[in-house]
Amino acid sequence: MDIKQILENYKNGLINIEESEKLLSRPPLEDIGYACIDHNRELRTGNSEIIYGEGKNAQQILGIIKKMIEKGAKNILASRCNDEKFQVIKQVYSNAKYYSASRTITIINEEIEKIKEKLLIISAGTSDIPIAEEAQITANFLGLNVETLNDVGVAGIHRLLSKIDIIQNASCIIVIAGMEGALPSVVGGLVDVPVIAVPTSVGYGSSFGGLSALLGMLNSCASGLAVVNIDNGFGAAYLAKRILKRK
Amino acid sequence: MDIKQILENYKNGLINIEESEKLLSRPPLEDIGYACIDHNRELRTGNSEIIYGEGKNAQQILGIIKKMIEKGAKNILASRCNDEKFQVIKQVYSNAKYYSASRTITIINEEIEKIKEKLLIISAGTSDIPIAEEAQITANFLGLNVETLNDVGVAGIHRLLSKIDIIQNASCIIVIAGMEGALPSVVGGLVDVPVIAVPTSVGYGSSFGGLSALLGMLNSCASGLAVVNIDNGFGAAYLAKRILKRK
Amino acid sequence: MDIKQILENYKNGLINIEESEKLLSRPPLEDIGYACIDHNRELRTGNSEIIYGEGKNAQQILGIIKKMIEKGAKNILASRCNDEKFQVIKQVYSNAKYYSASRTITIINEEIEKIKEKLLIISAGTSDIPIAEEAQITANFLGLNVETLNDVGVAGIHRLLSKIDIIQNASCIIVIAGMEGALPSVVGGLVDVPVIAVPTSVGYGSSFGGLSALLGMLNSCASGLAVVNIDNGFGAAYLAKRILKRK
Amino acid sequence: MDIKQILENYKNGLINIEESEKLLSRPPLEDIGYACIDHNRELRTGNSEIIYGEGKNAQQILGIIKKMIEKGAKNILASRCNDEKFQVIKQVYSNAKYYSASRTITIINEEIEKIKEKLLIISAGTSDIPIAEEAQITANFLGLNVETLNDVGVAGIHRLLSKIDIIQNASCIIVIAGMEGALPSVVGGLVDVPVIAVPTSVGYGSSFGGLSALLGMLNSCASGLAVVNIDNGFGAAYLAKRILKRK
Amino acid sequence: MDIKQILENYKNGLINIEESEKLLSRPPLEDIGYACIDHNRELRTGNSEIIYGEGKNAQQILGIIKKMIEKGAKNILASRCNDEKFQVIKQVYSNAKYYSASRTITIINEEIEKIKEKLLIISAGTSDIPIAEEAQITANFLGLNVETLNDVGVAGIHRLLSKIDIIQNASCIIVIAGMEGALPSVVGGLVDVPVIAVPTSVGYGSSFGGLSALLGMLNSCASGLAVVNIDNGFGAAYLAKRILKRK
Amino acid sequence: MDIKQILENYKNGLINIEESEKLLSRPPLEDIGYACIDHNRELRTGNSEIIYGEGKNAQQILGIIKKMIEKGAKNILASRCNDEKFQVIKQVYSNAKYYSASRTITIINEEIEKIKEKLLIISAGTSDIPIAEEAQITANFLGLNVETLNDVGVAGIHRLLSKIDIIQNASCIIVIAGMEGALPSVVGGLVDVPVIAVPTSVGYGSSFGGLSALLGMLNSCASGLAVVNIDNGFGAAYLAKRILKRK
Amino acid sequence: MDIKQILENYKNGLINIEESEKLLSRPPLEDIGYACIDHNRELRTGNSEIIYGEGKNAQQILGIIKKMIEKGAKNILASRCNDEKFQVIKQVYSNAKYYSASRTITIINEEIEKIKEKLLIISAGTSDIPIAEEAQITANFLGLNVETLNDVGVAGIHRLLSKIDIIQNASCIIVIAGMEGALPSVVGGLVDVPVIAVPTSVGYGSSFGGLSALLGMLNSCASGLAVVNIDNGFGAAYLAKRILKRK
Amino acid sequence: MDIKQILENYKNGLINIEESEKLLSRPPLEDIGYACIDHNRELRTGNSEIIYGEGKNAQQILGIIKKMIEKGAKNILASRCNDEKFQVIKQVYSNAKYYSASRTITIINEEIEKIKEKLLIISAGTSDIPIAEEAQITANFLGLNVETLNDVGVAGIHRLLSKIDIIQNASCIIVIAGMEGALPSVVGGLVDVPVIAVPTSVGYGSSFGGLSALLGMLNSCASGLAVVNIDNGFGAAYLAKRILKRK
Repeated sequence: MDIKQILENYKNGLINIEESEKLLSRPPLEDIGYACIDHNRELRTGNSEIIYGEGKNAQQILGIIKKMIEKGAKNILASRCNDEKFQVIKQVYSNAKYYSASRTITIINEEIEKIKEKLLIISAGTSDIPIAEEAQITANFLGLNVETLNDVGVAGIHRLLSKIDIIQNASCIIVIAGMEGALPSVVGGLVDVPVIAVPTSVGYGSSFGGLSALLGMLNSCASGLAVVNIDNGFGAAYLAKRILKRK
Repeated sequence: MDIKQILENYKNGLINIEESEKLLSRPPLEDIGYACIDHNRELRTGNSEIIYGEGKNAQQILGIIKKMIEKGAKNILASRCNDEKFQVIKQVYSNAKYYSASRTITIINEEIEKIKEKLLIISAGTSDIPIAEEAQITANFLGLNVETLNDVGVAGIHRLLSKIDIIQNASCIIVIAGMEGALPSVVGGLVDVPVIAVPTSVGYGSSFGGLSALLGMLNSCASGLAVVNIDNGFGAAYLAKRILKRK
Repeated sequence: MDIKQILENYKNGLINIEESEKLLSRPPLEDIGYACIDHNRELRTGNSEIIYGEGKNAQQILGIIKKMIEKGAKNILASRCNDEKFQVIKQVYSNAKYYSASRTITIINEEIEKIKEKLLIISAGTSDIPIAEEAQITANFLGLNVETLNDVGVAGIHRLLSKIDIIQNASCIIVIAGMEGALPSVVGGLVDVPVIAVPTSVGYGSSFGGLSALLGMLNSCASGLAVVNIDNGFGAAYLAKRILKRK
Repeated sequence: MDIKQILENYKNGLINIEESEKLLSRPPLEDIGYACIDHNRELRTGNSEIIYGEGKNAQQILGIIKKMIEKGAKNILASRCNDEKFQVIKQVYSNAKYYSASRTITIINEEIEKIKEKLLIISAGTSDIPIAEEAQITANFLGLNVETLNDVGVAGIHRLLSKIDIIQNASCIIVIAGMEGALPSVVGGLVDVPVIAVPTSVGYGSSFGGLSALLGMLNSCASGLAVVNIDNGFGAAYLAKRILKRK
Repeated sequence: MDIKQILENYKNGLINIEESEKLLSRPPLEDIGYACIDHNRELRTGNSEIIYGEGKNAQQILGIIKKMIEKGAKNILASRCNDEKFQVIKQVYSNAKYYSASRTITIINEEIEKIKEKLLIISAGTSDIPIAEEAQITANFLGLNVETLNDVGVAGIHRLLSKIDIIQNASCIIVIAGMEGALPSVVGGLVDVPVIAVPTSVGYGSSFGGLSALLGMLNSCASGLAVVNIDNGFGAAYLAKRILKRK
Repeated sequence: MDIKQILENYKNGLINIEESEKLLSRPPLEDIGYACIDHNRELRTGNSEIIYGEGKNAQQILGIIKKMIEKGAKNILASRCNDEKFQVIKQVYSNAKYYSASRTITIINEEIEKIKEKLLIISAGTSDIPIAEEAQITANFLGLNVETLNDVGVAGIHRLLSKIDIIQNASCIIVIAGMEGALPSVVGGLVDVPVIAVPTSVGYGSSFGGLSALLGMLNSCASGLAVVNIDNGFGAAYLAKRILKRK
Repeated sequence: MDIKQILENYKNGLINIEESEKLLSRPPLEDIGYACIDHNRELRTGNSEIIYGEGKNAQQILGIIKKMIEKGAKNILASRCNDEKFQVIKQVYSNAKYYSASRTITIINEEIEKIKEKLLIISAGTSDIPIAEEAQITANFLGLNVETLNDVGVAGIHRLLSKIDIIQNASCIIVIAGMEGALPSVVGGLVDVPVIAVPTSVGYGSSFGGLSALLGMLNSCASGLAVVNIDNGFGAAYLAKRILKRK
Repeated sequence: MDIKQILENYKNGLINIEESEKLLSRPPLEDIGYACIDHNRELRTGNSEIIYGEGKNAQQILGIIKKMIEKGAKNILASRCNDEKFQVIKQVYSNAKYYSASRTITIINEEIEKIKEKLLIISAGTSDIPIAEEAQITANFLGLNVETLNDVGVAGIHRLLSKIDIIQNASCIIVIAGMEGALPSVVGGLVDVPVIAVPTSVGYGSSFGGLSALLGMLNSCASGLAVVNIDNGFGAAYLAKRILKRK
C-alpha cells in the first residue's frame, strides 16, 4: 500500500487517522538497524527470529526471547552465546539446544520448511569447523538445504575433487578458510555458481587474526567471489539466503 | 563425460588413445588461473572473451585479441586499459569502443543476449562513477539486464527512496561507495535480494585508499552483504552473473 | 587581571609580594596536564572533581579523593574503576555509588545544578551501553541535562524516526556505535546541532578493535561530525559540556 | 507540518492529493546523502550552496552550479577544485573567485550575514595554511565570524600566549596541525569552549600521511577535543557552524 | 605411471576399469590441502606422519594417530599440542614423548635414518628456544642431521665467530631471532649455503608480535635469505628438508 | 694494541702464543649480542651485571646469576621478572630486592659509585610509573645520579614549570608518557640538554598499544628528541648512561 | 688457515708480517655489508660482479664498473637501473645489454659456466614478468641453468599441469605471483624440491602494494615455502644459487 | 631572574614597568613552537638561524631570511628546499650555497666555531647519502666537529672495522641506514658513546617507506640506541648537538 492508496483509503473512511498516521510513519528503512541489533525482523522467515548474543547477558537474551515468543515467534536462533547463557535459557525453554563449537542456541517449535536448491558449506580444516557450524545452523534455520564438506582439508584436495559431483550440484557454496585463504579461489574455479568466501582467524604469526585470509580472498584471481567479515559464518549463511531465496 | 565414460569410449574404439589422453589430462581446475590472467575462459559466455588490460602493453593485448578472434570469439572486453592502448587496437579493430571513465574497451560483433532479471547498479557519488561504469559495461557484456542509479548521491537519500520501486524490483543490487561506505547498509536494509558492496578509493586522509569503506562494508550491521575488493567493479559484475545466471 | 595590573596593584600596595608572585606564577597552561592526569581542575564545575581511575590502584584513588575533599570538593567522579576498587572506597565513603557497566564511581554530597539545553545520548546496540553509561554519568556530573535513547538499535531505525521529536529537540547529540559506525551519519543528516560520534570496540574480525567504526566516522559523508577516541564516552560528554556550557 | 497535520489539511481540502503525497514522501533523511555528494542542501544557509569538487570535472561542476542558480541559489562554494576547473567556471561566472592554496572557488551574489560569536582558526605552521584557508573560506561562507592566527607556529608559543585575549574571547576554536599534532592539546588546556582538532598530512617519514597527528589528537590528554578527518578544513568549519548556529 | 601407460595397461587387461579409474582420478594436487591440514602425506618420509595439533582436541588427534598407525605409519609427530593433550595420547601410546618448550609430541617406533649433510639451527636468545626446539625435533623427525647453537645469544657474537667452523661446515642453516631480527643477516654474510630466517614473536612494544623481526628479515641486505612465517620452526625445518633431501 | 703490535710482541717473546691467539681472537663485535641476551658485559660498570628476565624461567635466571657471581660480579640487576621468579632467587640470595611495579630484581653487594651530573626522570601519569621505575632502578644501577618527577602529570604543567630549576639543572632528561605522548615536546622546548622520549602503552582505543605515543614522539616538532621503544625504561636509562658517562 | 697457524707460519718465516697482518685483518663479516651495497663480493662467482643500481646515479654506477673491471672482473650485472643510466654506460662499454622489463644491465666478457641442475622460474601473469625477468637474468648470471614458464597464468593451471614433467624435473623452483599469491602453494604441493615464493606488487585496492601476496605466501598451507621480499626477483635467484651451488 | 626578583627590581626602580612586563610575559615555553616552525630560536647558536623549507615557497623563505638578517642573524640554514627555491634566494644572497643531495641551503657570513669532540656520521649505502648530507651540514652549522664514513656500505663491514680507531675516537655517532636498519646495532656494539640511529626510506616492497628500518632500530638488541624519525638527518644532528654541547 503506497502513500496515494493510504491517502485515498483515509479520505474514503476505510482507515481512520490513527491508522493512516501509523502506516505513513512506518519508515522504509525499518529493517536496517533492527537486523543490526537482534537480526530478528529482517531475518524473519515465517515465525523465526534471530538474536545476536555477543555483548548481551543471559537475562537480556532471555528477555528478548520472551518478547519474541509473546509476539508469535515459533523458532529462535541466538548466535555467539556461551554455555553459561545457555543454562539460563534452558531453564525456561527446555527444548533449547546448544551447539558448543559455534556457541549457537536454537529453540525450534515449528518445523522449518526447506528449499530445494542446495547450499554447500566447505571448510578447509578442523580449526575452521566452529565457523562452519555457525554457517550451517544459521542456514538450516533460514530454510536452506545445507550439505557440508567439513573434512575437505583433512582429506586433501583429492577429496574435494572426488566430491566434484556434490560441488557441481550445489546452487551456492560457502567456503571457509584461514591462514592464506586460498581455498575459495580453487572452488571458484570449479563452479559457476556464487561462492561466498569466509576468512577465519585460524593461523598464527603474520596471519594477524585473519587479515592474511581476508586479503587473500579479496584479491583472489578467481573472478566474482563474495567476501564477508572474518569468522562471519552467520553473514555467509544469510547472504546465501539472499541468493537462494530472493524471489 | 566422466573418467569412466572416457575409458569405455576408448576401449570401445570410439575415441583413440590420443583423444583419450587429452580428455583425461584436461584438469578440473583449468579455469582458476585462466580467469586470473585474462579472465577469458572462465568468463566465456557464448563467444565472449575478457582480457584484464592492466600490466599488459598494447601489443600484448592486441596479440591476445587476435588469437581469441582466430579461435572464434565474437565479442571482446578488455578492462583497465587506457586511451593510448585503445588507439592501437582501434587501428586493427575499427568497431572497438572505448569507455574512458572506466578505461574499458569492447569489440562487439554479435549481439549479446540478455536475461530477464534485473541487476541494479547504484553509485553514491560522481567520483564513484568510473567504478560503476566498469561494473555496468562488464555486466552488459556478460548478458545481464542492467539498470543504473548513478546520481543517487546527488539526489539525496530521498531520491533513493523515491526510486524504491526500481530498487525493490531488482533481483540483485551492486552498491558502490567510497569514504565511509555506508550506502550498502542502507540498501541492504531495503531489500531481501543479494547486495554486492564495492568499496572505492574515493576519499582522502584517513580513508587510506579505500580501507575505510572496505572495513565499513565488511563490518556492516546489515546482514549478508557480499563484499569485493576496493574499486573492483568488474568483480562485482561477475559475481552478479554468478548469482543471476547460475543455472 | 593582566600582568600590568598585577604590577600596579603590587606597587600600590594593594597586594603584597606573595600574592603578586602567586598570581604571576599561575601558569596559563595549568589545566592541560591536570585534566590529563586526574581531570579535576579543568573539569571543576562548582565543587566537582574527576579522577581517571585506569592504572591507579585503590589506595591511590582513595588518597586523591581524600585530598580533594580536604580542599573543598563536594562531588567526585572516578572513571574506569572496578568493583574491587569501589569496595575500598565504599568503606571510607559510604555514599559512594558504583555503575558497573561503565565502571564509574560517584560520590555526590551536593546537588548538581542542571542547564536547560538537552544533550541526547544515542547508542546503537546493547553492547555499546557501557560506553553510553560512561557518557551519561559524566554528562550528568558536569551539569548537563541528559536524555538517552539506549535501545535505538534494538528498536530499529523506525524507533529512531519515531523519536524524531526528541532528536530534533536536542541541543547536542552523542551517537555511540561500533562495527561500521554508520549511525552518526544517519543522525547527522537529521539535525543541524553538533553530533559527537563515539566509535566503540564492539565488533569482531576486521573491526580491529574499533578501527572500522573510527575510520567510518572520520570519513562520514555527513558534514561536520565531531569524532572522539574509541570507547571514549567520557571525552564525548566533556566535549558536550564545552559546547553547551561555553559561556 | 507533521503527518497528522498533512492528513487533516488534505481531508479539509487545504491541500490536494498531489501536494499531500509530495509532502508525505519528503523523507526525513533527505539531507544525509545530499551533503555527502555536493553538500548543498544540508549546507544551505539562506541562498548558499556548496559543491564538493574532487572527482568532478569542470563541466560537471559547471552544470551543478547552473542548476543551483536556476533554483535560486545566490552564493556558491566549490571546494577541492583546481585552477583549470576555475578557468572554465570563470568564463561563465565572471565574479567567481579562486583561492589557490585551498583550491576553493566562490561565487558571491548576495552578502552573507555574519553571526556575532567568534570562531578562531589557529594553524601551527606555514604548511598547514592550505587547510586553514579551506576552513576559513568555508566558515565565512557559512556566515561565521572568523578570526585567524596563521602564524602561531612561526611566532612561537609565546605569540600564542601573547594572543591569549583573542583566544579566550573566541566562542569556538579550530586548531590545525600536522606532525605530532600536539597544538590542540595546548589550546584545549587554555579555554573551555569547543576545540576542533584538524590533523594535517604535513610531515614525513613516520607521520604516515597524517596518521601520527590524527592518533595524537584522538588520544589527547586534553579532555573533550572534537577531531575531524585528516586535512578536513571544510568539515571543521561545518562543525563550527553546527556549534555556533545551532539554535 | 602416466596416463598413457594407465590406458595401455587397461586396454591390455593388466588393470581393470575400477583400478584404472582410481589411478586416473588421483589428482596431481593431492598433497596441497593434505599438508595444510595434518601435514602427513606430503611430509611422509618412510613411515613417518605429521599432525598439526593446533585447533584439534585430544580425541581428534588420537583418532588421527590411530588411523595413521592402522595404515602403517611407524612414527608420528604432532606439533603445537599441549600437556593435557599429551596425557590423553600417552595413555594409549606409552612411548609417546612430549617436548614442553615447543609443545611437540613424538611417537617413534622405528629408527629414523639420517642424511649426512648437516643442518645447523642457531637461535639468538633464550626466549627463542621454543621455536628452535620445534625446528630441531621436526628436522630430526624428517631425517635431517641437526646441530644446534642455542646459546649464541648468551655467548655473544664472538661465540658465534668462535664456532665459525661449525657454521661453515653446515650445508644449510636455520637462524631464529626475535626483536630486530638481525642475526640472519650476520650469518648470511658468513656462509654461501642457504640460510632460513625464522622471525619470532619475542619482543615487546613496537615489535608488534614479531612484525619487526619479519620485516627486518624480508628487507635484509644479505642477499638470498629464505624467510618463513613468524614462530614457524616447523616450516623452517620442512624447508631445510626440501633443500637437503631434494634428490 | 693493534694486530701489528700483537704480532711484534709475540715474535719478540713479550707474549706467548696462547696470549697472542686470545688477543687476536677477541672479536670486535663481542658486545653486540651479549648485551642483546643478558646485557651483562656491555653493561658492566665495575662489577655490575644485568640480566634480561623476560622469557627466562627462574632456574635459568638463577643459573646465570650464579655463574656471574662466580666470575666476580658483585651487583646484579634482572629486569622484567616477576614475584614468583623473585621468590626462587631470594631463597639463594637473601639480599635480593624486588621492585614490583617495574618487576625488577637487584642484588647489591658493593656500593655503586655515582657520577655528579644529574639525570632527571619525568613521567606523565600514575600509569607510567612502572616504566619510570624501570628507568630509575636501571640508571641507579649504572651509577647515574637520578632525580625523579613522577607526579608531574598529577600536579599539572604548572608543577612542571614550578620545578623549572630542577629541570634546567639536569644534564639529561628522560620523559615518559603514553596516550598522545606530547610531554617530551614540552620538555624539549624548555631545555638544551638531551631529552630521551619513552612512549608507553598507557591508553586505550586508538592508542594501539603505544603506537600513538611512539608516532607522536618520532614526529615531534621539538628538534632532536631521542626516542626508544614503547615501554623501554631500561633502554632509556642505558642511553642516558651512554650520554652521561661517555668519556 | 686459523689464527694459530698464521702465527706459527709467521714466526717460522713462512709468511712475512704484512702477509700475516693482512690475513689476520680479513674480517669474518666482510661479505655482509658489501653485498648490501653492491652485492659484488658476496656474489662473486668467477669474475662476475653485481651492482645494485637503485639510488645510484649513472656516474656512480659507471665508476663502480670501471673499478671492478680494473680489479679483474669480466662480467657485470647492474640491477634496478633505467634506460637513461644504460645510455651512459653503453657509451663506455659498447657490449652492455639492457633488459627493459626488469631494468637490468649486463656486461658479459667471459662465458658463464652453467650447472646441470635446473632452476625453474614460474610467473603467474603478464604483469609479473618484470620480476621474473630480474630473477632469470640474475640466475643466468650466477651460473644457474634456468627454464621459464612465464605464461602459466595466461595458459591456465592446465598448462601448468601439462608441464608437470618440466616442473617435476626442476631441482628448485621460483614462483612469482601478485594479488592473492596462491600459486606457490599449488606448486609447493606438486613437488618436493625447494620452492621460492616471490610476492609481487601486482594488484590494486586491498593488495596494498603486494602485502596481500606476501601475507598469503607466509601463511601458506604448503609446508616449507621460502619467501623473499615483495618484487625481489634478484633475491630469489640468489637464494636459488645458495641452494643449487652450495659446495 | 625569577618572578620574585623581577618584582623586587621593579619596586626598587631597577627596571621600569615596561621591562618588568616584558620579562614576566616571556613564556617559559617559548622555544617549543618556534623550533617547530622555523627552528630558529631554539637552534640559535651564536648568530645562526635555521629554516625548515618544506611547504614554504621561495618568497616565504626569502622573507624569513630577510627578517632574520635584519634582526642580526649572520648565518642561515634552510633545510628541505629545492633548486628552484635556491635560485630565488641566490639572486638576493649571492653567497648562498646549495647542497643538492640533501636539498639544503646555507648562507654563511661568519665563521662557525667548532667544538673539539668528534661527531661521526656513518651511512650504510649510496642511497642513504642525502640523509647523511643533511645531518652533516646541519651538524657543521651547529658547530659540531664532524667526520663522515659515507662509503661504509660500499666498502663492506671490514672497512667499518678497519676504521675502528675513527669509530672509537668519536664522542657521538649518527648511523644512517635503510632496508632492515641493522647497522646501528653493529655500531652500538662497538662503542660506549651515544649512537643515534636514523632509519631511511631506502628500500622497496615490505620496507614500507622506512617502516622496516624504523622498527628494526626501535627493537635493536643493542641497548640504548637513540632513534629519530625516518629520513630525519636534521633531527639526528640536532640531537648530537644537545649531547655534545650541553653546557
